[in-house]
Amino acid sequence: MSDCIFCKIVEGSLPSTKVYEDDDVLAFRDIQPAAPVHVLIIPKKHIATMNDVTDEDGALIAKIFAAARKIAADLGVAESGYRLVNNVNRDGGQVVYHLHVHLLAGRKLGALLAPDAS
Amino acid sequence: MSDCIFCKIVEGSLPSTKVYEDDDVLAFRDIQPAAPVHVLIIPKKHIATMNDVTDEDGALIAKIFAAARKIAADLGVAESGYRLVNNVNRDGGQVVYHLHVHLLAGRKLGALLAPDAS
Repeated sequence: MSDCIFCKIVEGSLPSTKVYEDDDVLAFRDIQPAAPVHVLIIPKKHIATMNDVTDEDGALIAKIFAAARKIAADLGVAESGYRLVNNVNRDGGQVVYHLHVHLLAGRKLGALLAPDAS
Repeated sequence: MSDCIFCKIVEGSLPSTKVYEDDDVLAFRDIQPAAPVHVLIIPKKHIATMNDVTDEDGALIAKIFAAARKIAADLGVAESGYRLVNNVNRDGGQVVYHLHVHLLAGRKLGALLAPDAS
């Protein structure tokens, strides 16, 4: 997985601003934030997309969302609110092919989708 | 939970167009679709928001995302791509206070967030 930038962040060969870490999950600030709070939550092991998650990864998926709850609380946005987004493949707008959940917060996030640009 | 419209959909006292069901999870079409494919995936038991998920609900969270994968495949959008969104509280834009994950697909979904309207 030498070409995966998120694997490099997990390994420590690329820097990141970490906000949460456990044995299986890492979370760090997005370097191009789309909102005042914009954190990426990833499994440490390489999984390309949500399509590649297997039933054996169930506990890992649960840990990613447990981390999201904890991060929202730690950053003081649990009550004001936040949005969790996972993009899959082209139509979803996935850019990095290592599974990641965006945690967005810090302002009223508005509509579910940007206007249809197609 | 008599005032919760998603609980009523689970009970069958409100209609829905179901696309997936198992013992713990139900998925149905959003009645105000924001994209050509717009499905809501919910736990059958009432959980108000992602903040109210407990560690004991881990398997349920895993099942919700396993359902998302299956629905994306069944609806033919797994490869073209899709977006999974969970809104929490006011800033997140949560409308119904029964945990739900939006599955959006069927067109290029564009930016992660709509332009800042605040």
